[in-house]
Amino acid sequence: MRSLETLQKEIASGDVRALARAATLVENQTDLGRELIAALFPQTGRAMTIGITGLPGAGKSTLVDQLTKHLRKEGRTVAVIAADPSSPYSRGAILGDRIRMQSHFDDGGVFIRSMATRGKLGGIAQTTLEMALLFDAAGLDVILIETVGVGQDEIEIARLADVTVLVLTPGMGDDIQAIKAGIMEIADVFAINKSDLPGAERLEQEIRAMQSLGGESDRANAAPVRRVIATEGHGIDELLTAIREVFERRGRQNTRQEVWEFRLQEMLRDRLLKDIDGESLREHAKRVAAKMEDPYRAVDELWQSR
Amino acid sequence: MRSLETLQKEIASGDVRALARAATLVENQTDLGRELIAALFPQTGRAMTIGITGLPGAGKSTLVDQLTKHLRKEGRTVAVIAADPSSPYSRGAILGDRIRMQSHFDDGGVFIRSMATRGKLGGIAQTTLEMALLFDAAGLDVILIETVGVGQDEIEIARLADVTVLVLTPGMGDDIQAIKAGIMEIADVFAINKSDLPGAERLEQEIRAMQSLGGESDRANAAPVRRVIATEGHGIDELLTAIREVFERRGRQNTRQEVWEFRLQEMLRDRLLKDIDGESLREHAKRVAAKMEDPYRAVDELWQSR
Repeated sequence: MRSLETLQKEIASGDVRALARAATLVENQTDLGRELIAALFPQTGRAMTIGITGLPGAGKSTLVDQLTKHLRKEGRTVAVIAADPSSPYSRGAILGDRIRMQSHFDDGGVFIRSMATRGKLGGIAQTTLEMALLFDAAGLDVILIETVGVGQDEIEIARLADVTVLVLTPGMGDDIQAIKAGIMEIADVFAINKSDLPGAERLEQEIRAMQSLGGESDRANAAPVRRVIATEGHGIDELLTAIREVFERRGRQNTRQEVWEFRLQEMLRDRLLKDIDGESLREHAKRVAAKMEDPYRAVDELWQSR
Repeated sequence: MRSLETLQKEIASGDVRALARAATLVENQTDLGRELIAALFPQTGRAMTIGITGLPGAGKSTLVDQLTKHLRKEGRTVAVIAADPSSPYSRGAILGDRIRMQSHFDDGGVFIRSMATRGKLGGIAQTTLEMALLFDAAGLDVILIETVGVGQDEIEIARLADVTVLVLTPGMGDDIQAIKAGIMEIADVFAINKSDLPGAERLEQEIRAMQSLGGESDRANAAPVRRVIATEGHGIDELLTAIREVFERRGRQNTRQEVWEFRLQEMLRDRLLKDIDGESLREHAKRVAAKMEDPYRAVDELWQSR
């Protein structure tokens, strides 16, 4: 096992193998991984982090692919975090960069990481944050985070990103109602993908109508809406411009106190669970299941027994 | 404010207004609500709880409506918990029962509750569980829980249900890939809705293929697949039979130790957050945001300061 100092040095020098090893340490929530993030923490805060969220089938992966290509053309280095084990990044065009395993990520300029930690202790949001901090400290310019769907996890992940793009497609009229609660509020930029399909105009109107209902009719503050056709690379430039405008207006999110208030709470929760005696937890769970004890009393006793 | 004893007595006598009041106490996470659940807890364990999950647009609400009608015809009383504030239950056919506000729920036999607590402390899963325990203690026979999407919340809610139905529709071939991770595993029964559309056969084959990959080719243990057309009431009988077969084979979930182990952990987490000094949390968050402190040190200090 490499020492903390060696790893830190290798990452700072742009060693892509060291970065891959470090990402694994972080993903597996090892002590060394946490020490590394703690040590690298002062060097973070340079990257721009973009969250890409939306329903399955909306074309998020294709959009991430196109954004990556554009950013590379500009000479930016890019990290992609696919916060979902079923993400198609295990194959396809982008993967080339990973397979080659270039000795220095500046050779390829793209570093991709799919995560398989869904549901594990610590949660996907915490691991995603640590991964983003790692890539930030390693000097990558832009970090793209793709989420799987539109649930609570995705809302948490969006809170980590500097700018969150919600990808929608025409013809999901019912869906827009269904996903409205919780998720529409987190969109900093709306991307209407597959915008050559009928209904793109109507979808844009629906978004605008929703924004005026929400009191965001003031154009300057309302989340911009951009039409794209990700498969053909149309509108990517304009989308990226909108993302950058939002970023410039709002600034970096992980330098915000509220974001860390939430994050520290989550980390405290994980810590508590490590502090509870497993045997005692199982015993109480058994008693509650048998209706010999109510759940609130069980929690009281577990709480006091620490 | 009514006393605990009065509320308990009214609920036991089937007073639907008392039940509605109690549901509000539970939803708002009041002390009285928790005392009530604790007091009613020994009387729970009679109802069958069915979770209905799936992507937005799959027809979950229509299916819940049809299942309710079928169960009412059999003379069963039904509670519907829509674990999503944007659910369409605020209007429509089912609502009649609620609007009438019958003085005794046996008159209507259906009690509907939409929740608006998404994202609040305690989480939607905990509130859904407490609501289900309340309806169970009140003597309702079947509790239908409809979730909004297919995220982590939905997986947690599915853990509470005795039987979880995953609603899919033909032509979501890509989606099945995207939602496979995490959610496919929690399906006890697959309902292929809109099964008159092209692709129903193919979807069923995909589900079967996935089951054999997962080593569930043994027909007796594999989750049954049923085709329905919810809007026309087709296949509801067969779906209900499949649900009951699973229920008989597996038994009641909330009498299982593992379910309560998970639940007690969640309740402990909520408790911890109440125990942390808000001022101190904000101070540390500020320091982390300014990179004057790394997040792990902040958590250490908050943990020790309790």
